[in-house]
Amino acid sequence: MIDYKLLEALATVIECGGFERAGLALGLSQSAISQRIRTLEIRLGQPVLVRSPVLRATPAGQRLLNHVQQVQLLERDLAKSIPALSEPAARLRIALNADSLATWWATAVGSFCADEGLLLDLVVEDQDIGLRRMREGDVAACLCSSPQPVAGARCVPIGTMTYLPLAAPEYVSRYFAEGLNETSLQTAPAIVFGPNDQLQHRFLAQCGYHGSFPHHLCPSSEGFVKLALAGMGYGMIPEMQARPEITAGHLISIAPEQTLQVQLYWHFWRHGGGVMDRLTQALQRAGTFQAS
Amino acid sequence: MIDYKLLEALATVIECGGFERAGLALGLSQSAISQRIRTLEIRLGQPVLVRSPVLRATPAGQRLLNHVQQVQLLERDLAKSIPALSEPAARLRIALNADSLATWWATAVGSFCADEGLLLDLVVEDQDIGLRRMREGDVAACLCSSPQPVAGARCVPIGTMTYLPLAAPEYVSRYFAEGLNETSLQTAPAIVFGPNDQLQHRFLAQCGYHGSFPHHLCPSSEGFVKLALAGMGYGMIPEMQARPEITAGHLISIAPEQTLQVQLYWHFWRHGGGVMDRLTQALQRAGTFQAS
Repeated sequence: MIDYKLLEALATVIECGGFERAGLALGLSQSAISQRIRTLEIRLGQPVLVRSPVLRATPAGQRLLNHVQQVQLLERDLAKSIPALSEPAARLRIALNADSLATWWATAVGSFCADEGLLLDLVVEDQDIGLRRMREGDVAACLCSSPQPVAGARCVPIGTMTYLPLAAPEYVSRYFAEGLNETSLQTAPAIVFGPNDQLQHRFLAQCGYHGSFPHHLCPSSEGFVKLALAGMGYGMIPEMQARPEITAGHLISIAPEQTLQVQLYWHFWRHGGGVMDRLTQALQRAGTFQAS
Repeated sequence: MIDYKLLEALATVIECGGFERAGLALGLSQSAISQRIRTLEIRLGQPVLVRSPVLRATPAGQRLLNHVQQVQLLERDLAKSIPALSEPAARLRIALNADSLATWWATAVGSFCADEGLLLDLVVEDQDIGLRRMREGDVAACLCSSPQPVAGARCVPIGTMTYLPLAAPEYVSRYFAEGLNETSLQTAPAIVFGPNDQLQHRFLAQCGYHGSFPHHLCPSSEGFVKLALAGMGYGMIPEMQARPEITAGHLISIAPEQTLQVQLYWHFWRHGGGVMDRLTQALQRAGTFQAS
């Protein structure tokens, strides 16, 4: 059987982003960690880590990470029936989109995690990168808007988020006093989450506008709302996130008839064991958030 | 003189994260962009880009990026006195800490950006990575908690953020009914922003606790607050961000006598021209946020 001390060292080095931190996490010296990685590489006859420019797993290392993550999930189930086996809680690494984390995620999983004593290691990623990290075995699950399943993983729909094109009233008077048209859209700054965020482009296409537009880039859900509130631009914001600001009149829609629906999907490894199944059920129950 | 069409192509490829997107941004074909990069590399006699595993600038390319960013800032000032020179607004790339972006940043710079027609390209980074990107010429400025200046750049203090150790009342009853002690801190889940976040460790050290503690990892300011509200853990949250939740009784301090002060510093290139000086003044005026 595989020596799991070696795999645990590998997983911890990747999780902590370094040998010294992995040593601290496991209560070992840095050289003990290095020794375990070296032993693993000698047994495999190939490297499991690339050291530069950034520390990451080789393809072989990634397959080991994927495996050890699934074993850890299975161990959690075992420890439920044999409590003496319980170790300090493992963390479940999950990639998810920033807007879910900024809105409904914690409400959906909070009591589940508290009741199961489950700790989360959340990583915020675009769907492409989130799904790639899943293929690489670096995360156990991924919440994103892609329905394309990862080989060997399951994919279930989780609900829909509604986005509205929102801006501060002063901003609207300044740039859209004469409505949305070719001229105003060419000069009014938008807010875009990042290079892969196509929501503003989709909204403008719905309005019949296909030209370029000035925009800030702001890769933070909360920062995005703050920029809109400060009158710096308009942007597509989840209706559930902006509701208090809409009610208070601090944000208004620049095109009330235009909304965008984004369907979310939950990708997870088939052999994740009972804890993953129960977490999936908790998310599916919360999937009714689109109606809220 | 340098052919700035070539440098603009390089800067756009890095900013957009690819040749195809850079072409779209500049209204050029992908092959025209490739040709410009190739021409630049032939003139320099060395590569300016590394294509894999991720697209990034070589050290020589980074020096060019740094240079072109400073030239763009100077051009902005020139265009103010000679408006006919004005091009579509350039974006100023700034690295900053997530908590500033989630709280006071937009209020501090919003009207300045609107009045100057300045667009921002914000990147959220730990201070180490933010300062490294500054040294590499990839960002024009960096807001972080390090007072260590980057060679050739200026560094000014901007104000202090106050952090409180907050959790939901149900969470406190569940884990800290008998107060904070060795036993409760060993089992109560904390929330940590990421591997470089030492705020929870500093707080626990202030409480006289130096052992390990279970924790979720959540690299999102808003997500962090949502996890705390959902009763998943306690964590150090900016007082200004949590104020409404504290007033409403949804978050309470687990150790009311303990707070942490984080001093912020603004790093920017000396030759950034008038726009950078005025932006710095706007931030310094806002630096009174610690009193708010």
